[in-house]
Amino acid sequence: MDSVQPAKVVENMIQAGKTKANLSIKHLLIRGGLAGAFLGYATTLAFTANLQTGIDMMGAILFPVGFVMIILLGLELVTGNFALLPAAKLNGQVSTAGMLHNWFWVIIGHLIGSIFYALLFVAATTQFGTAGPSAMSELLIAVAETKTIGYAALGGAGLGTVFIKAILCNWMVALGAIMAMTSKSTIGKIAAMWLPILIFFGQGFEHAVVNMFVIPAGMMLGAEVTIADWWLWNQIPVLLGNLVSAFLLAGAALYFTHGKKETGKEAALQNLKKAQ
Amino acid sequence: MDSVQPAKVVENMIQAGKTKANLSIKHLLIRGGLAGAFLGYATTLAFTANLQTGIDMMGAILFPVGFVMIILLGLELVTGNFALLPAAKLNGQVSTAGMLHNWFWVIIGHLIGSIFYALLFVAATTQFGTAGPSAMSELLIAVAETKTIGYAALGGAGLGTVFIKAILCNWMVALGAIMAMTSKSTIGKIAAMWLPILIFFGQGFEHAVVNMFVIPAGMMLGAEVTIADWWLWNQIPVLLGNLVSAFLLAGAALYFTHGKKETGKEAALQNLKKAQ
Amino acid sequence: MDSVQPAKVVENMIQAGKTKANLSIKHLLIRGGLAGAFLGYATTLAFTANLQTGIDMMGAILFPVGFVMIILLGLELVTGNFALLPAAKLNGQVSTAGMLHNWFWVIIGHLIGSIFYALLFVAATTQFGTAGPSAMSELLIAVAETKTIGYAALGGAGLGTVFIKAILCNWMVALGAIMAMTSKSTIGKIAAMWLPILIFFGQGFEHAVVNMFVIPAGMMLGAEVTIADWWLWNQIPVLLGNLVSAFLLAGAALYFTHGKKETGKEAALQNLKKAQ
Amino acid sequence: MDSVQPAKVVENMIQAGKTKANLSIKHLLIRGGLAGAFLGYATTLAFTANLQTGIDMMGAILFPVGFVMIILLGLELVTGNFALLPAAKLNGQVSTAGMLHNWFWVIIGHLIGSIFYALLFVAATTQFGTAGPSAMSELLIAVAETKTIGYAALGGAGLGTVFIKAILCNWMVALGAIMAMTSKSTIGKIAAMWLPILIFFGQGFEHAVVNMFVIPAGMMLGAEVTIADWWLWNQIPVLLGNLVSAFLLAGAALYFTHGKKETGKEAALQNLKKAQ
Amino acid sequence: MDSVQPAKVVENMIQAGKTKANLSIKHLLIRGGLAGAFLGYATTLAFTANLQTGIDMMGAILFPVGFVMIILLGLELVTGNFALLPAAKLNGQVSTAGMLHNWFWVIIGHLIGSIFYALLFVAATTQFGTAGPSAMSELLIAVAETKTIGYAALGGAGLGTVFIKAILCNWMVALGAIMAMTSKSTIGKIAAMWLPILIFFGQGFEHAVVNMFVIPAGMMLGAEVTIADWWLWNQIPVLLGNLVSAFLLAGAALYFTHGKKETGKEAALQNLKKAQ
Repeated sequence: MDSVQPAKVVENMIQAGKTKANLSIKHLLIRGGLAGAFLGYATTLAFTANLQTGIDMMGAILFPVGFVMIILLGLELVTGNFALLPAAKLNGQVSTAGMLHNWFWVIIGHLIGSIFYALLFVAATTQFGTAGPSAMSELLIAVAETKTIGYAALGGAGLGTVFIKAILCNWMVALGAIMAMTSKSTIGKIAAMWLPILIFFGQGFEHAVVNMFVIPAGMMLGAEVTIADWWLWNQIPVLLGNLVSAFLLAGAALYFTHGKKETGKEAALQNLKKAQ
Repeated sequence: MDSVQPAKVVENMIQAGKTKANLSIKHLLIRGGLAGAFLGYATTLAFTANLQTGIDMMGAILFPVGFVMIILLGLELVTGNFALLPAAKLNGQVSTAGMLHNWFWVIIGHLIGSIFYALLFVAATTQFGTAGPSAMSELLIAVAETKTIGYAALGGAGLGTVFIKAILCNWMVALGAIMAMTSKSTIGKIAAMWLPILIFFGQGFEHAVVNMFVIPAGMMLGAEVTIADWWLWNQIPVLLGNLVSAFLLAGAALYFTHGKKETGKEAALQNLKKAQ
Repeated sequence: MDSVQPAKVVENMIQAGKTKANLSIKHLLIRGGLAGAFLGYATTLAFTANLQTGIDMMGAILFPVGFVMIILLGLELVTGNFALLPAAKLNGQVSTAGMLHNWFWVIIGHLIGSIFYALLFVAATTQFGTAGPSAMSELLIAVAETKTIGYAALGGAGLGTVFIKAILCNWMVALGAIMAMTSKSTIGKIAAMWLPILIFFGQGFEHAVVNMFVIPAGMMLGAEVTIADWWLWNQIPVLLGNLVSAFLLAGAALYFTHGKKETGKEAALQNLKKAQ
Repeated sequence: MDSVQPAKVVENMIQAGKTKANLSIKHLLIRGGLAGAFLGYATTLAFTANLQTGIDMMGAILFPVGFVMIILLGLELVTGNFALLPAAKLNGQVSTAGMLHNWFWVIIGHLIGSIFYALLFVAATTQFGTAGPSAMSELLIAVAETKTIGYAALGGAGLGTVFIKAILCNWMVALGAIMAMTSKSTIGKIAAMWLPILIFFGQGFEHAVVNMFVIPAGMMLGAEVTIADWWLWNQIPVLLGNLVSAFLLAGAALYFTHGKKETGKEAALQNLKKAQ
Repeated sequence: MDSVQPAKVVENMIQAGKTKANLSIKHLLIRGGLAGAFLGYATTLAFTANLQTGIDMMGAILFPVGFVMIILLGLELVTGNFALLPAAKLNGQVSTAGMLHNWFWVIIGHLIGSIFYALLFVAATTQFGTAGPSAMSELLIAVAETKTIGYAALGGAGLGTVFIKAILCNWMVALGAIMAMTSKSTIGKIAAMWLPILIFFGQGFEHAVVNMFVIPAGMMLGAEVTIADWWLWNQIPVLLGNLVSAFLLAGAALYFTHGKKETGKEAALQNLKKAQ
């Protein structure tokens, strides 16, 4: 049957986490790099729709295209991995080192892919600097500034806000990666994972990988943002917030309610195999 | 075959009700908590769409995302359970105590999840109180007031209205949980359950779990609503209205027309097993 | 395979007609009652969309939600049965009495369900009479008057118009019930049956069961329509027009072109079984 | 597997062409008649959407509903048959006489069905002549005149234009019938065939069967179009243009690139069977 | 199961590349010709939508119709082949000569098909020159000029821009061809390939085959563009940019991360077969 039961979904989460913890740096960089670029594509697509219609929700309805490509092509997305590897770790299938190894190199891959796409996109949209400011370049600048010095201007409240928005974001993104496992058919996967991604983007929550494109792109176009602004007021708190919700509210929550019996059975099988 | 016949749907309802009646408090709290938060997410997504387009139906078209996540991830929703457990009870598979046990702890879970999401959302949307009033905060306040002191202002007619709107709401929501069982494929489940949820939200009927987010969120933002207003003029009559329609108009109605023969057969098998 | 060949569709029509002719009054009332209420829900949803967008086609795009619920939950809809039972009768599987028995009790069920929903909806929308006239109540009144005394004002031309519009309506609705049989998957059924229902509602043709909600609801809200107006200028000619097209243009037409060989084979098998 | 390989699609085209060439006049008339009426329905639905939104593409997005019903219910459409029977003929499975027999009687069926629908629709929309001119009746008149005397006013350039527009139309419609064969599931068939039909209608190309409804309907409503105008400046050149593209650019093109090996194999099997 | 794992997708890419390298000139011309025409159709459909709504994203949402037809009917598209044949070549299944043979003749086919469609479309839209300038003809002229002399006016920056836009385009188009392989069902294929095509067209990136229609069509309508302008400032740099991204960023990237083990196994099987 096409539809996958929740207990089996958690089993798949654990299996996926285990596989991901064992990927070599080369694979993590290629897969993370492609994923970073694809979210950049999705972001500029969504912004184009917003500028044309004046309705941000239109962009949000289109944005999941990039996420779907990442999942269907078996790439690596750290915000999803923030839920999958902990689930495998809770089940004893993955070491902390393996988990951190994955996260670190995938983030490096995302940075490379996102900034590579930002370079290409900025070159194209400014026609190598010969074009004047466009609606798109002004939007990217404004978003980059809002997401960094905008929070800085609020001090501790800004830091709290960006952290909460990162938590709100990745509860959904992590579930996007998980909901793709509720179906064995491509159309089922696409539909299921579209939903939580739409929820987060439609409400402007903070996603670490999207920001790896949008803030550097804004900076290239002239945003008044330093690298320190980018990391201190956005990238670091967003990565932490994304991790908290993926780990606790998605990965662990589902593991503790749907994973127990299944994993007990699996552990038994595991032991059986070792014994043979 | 992917499509499930009505008699088998009723059988699945009974089976689901039985399973749900036997879940421990831990599972009911986790699953109910996640479900409460997801409906909160869906509500703020829908409100965002409404504010951007000025057309409430746009929000209603998006709102079922949260319900779909609840069902596909095997969580607990009391408004669906108001139909499923009675069906199992009519079939003699569930005791009244088991049914009330499920409902009570799922409601507690919903309250925890909904209020947790409301806290995060309010913190983010007000930027920890540093931002002035936004369209979203004003909308949440207005909705919270309309749904409580708005009814109170009408006295008995208000109480009657909220009760009828709760009946109208949950006839559909309960059918959403049931229609998800008409298909064995994820895309079929999503499409089938989307419909009744769209119907209720598009017409502004009263759903107990949505209100567990929207009224507290409005209160946190400054709505002139007391806890007594919330429970007396909304939460209690809405829970009762939701229960009435789910029980009588969805669960029992389908049980009595599609469940009979099937359950006779099942009872026979049941007895056979006991006899062995 | 998921897709069902036309000859097999006709065979399923006959089988469905046979089953429906043998349902007890209890089942016909419950299933017809639910179906009547669901079309009421779909109608108020569509009207809400129309009022919000000013584009009636938006409502028509949403309206099939009610029809889909009826079919997937195995309920009874007399306008579909106007095609299915005649097909079974042409095949000699159903008596005229069995056919009329089904139609009569399903219509009674529809009336109960539609008027029950109308009562609830009117109570909610007028807040038990305490609210002033709303856009929705004015629309329901206007539609109820147009569909009755509007035709009466034209005399014979009005009667002819309502009858032709009923024919045009139910050629499509009957095909909706039939097209649901072209697929074995839920998503295929939903997509296939959505189309003809959208066609009829989008063009404002006359459907007997929709009118069982919309005219009484308008009357409850103050439309200048008597019960005689309702039945003489709408309900009776619409039922007749619905019957004509479902019977001749949908049921019989498909039976005579796709049913022949299949039914010959079936009749042979039937005889074979009797002989054994 | 649900998806059908191109070589198998061509094999199915040949098989369909063969079956169609052997249908009796009765079947061709019933199936062609229903198909003609359904395209009439789809046309008035699309025109309604256009009038309500002012955006013709909205109508084009809805228009394929009629085509889908024709294909899923196994009816006959001459514009699709213009590709399917030639493919079977190229393969030696169908005689020229069989091909012309199908086309002739299906066209007669289309005329009967289209004009029957036009009569009903005109009666309903004018309320048996008692209603004044409506936006719909004025649109139908204008379209009927543009599609006939509009071309006549341009002389040879008009004849050339209508012929080219018929070629452009039916390259797509013929592929609609063929793309329905790329899937074994109903939803796959619907999605695949929707696309080329949308392409043609969205650009206002000339389709023989649509015109069999829209021009007579316009004439009934008062368009200044004679039967000679209809046939000489539209129906005949459109049928020819539709035939040219379906035959050469759809049927033959696919046959010569995907049909060869397959048909060799089939011919061999054919001979084998004869030899037995 | 319907969904295809990434390693198997890469295996399919290699297999497809191998098959394509062995097609005769006849097949490459027919399949490339049809594909060229279909993208022309899709382009004029999208432009029609843009002109009617004033929102270019509407056209982009519809544009993938042409791409889907190409893939489902097993035709040849050079921009997809820029990824598929290199993957097969990296795996040692295809010679450089075979790869260039495919690309060259498919491009010739595209030119024939695109210009053929342009001739038909221009004849129809100008009514053989008797109609005055239309919104469509003015748009085609403007686009043709922007895409050629527009870049020329910027000199080196223009050349750089068109090259980068071609890279950005075909990263997505190549993935469109690849994502169609992530599913075995038609609906899954359609949904998966729709996404990257929407991404590229929605942002106005440069696609070689679309330009083979749009620039000649603009020229026929009076754009101030010479054949040298067309090729030097657009067609050649776009083909090169399309090749770079399809080869390196789609084909090779996926090959190196998902292809390794699989291809080792396959090579072993290959050797085994040779040894037999």
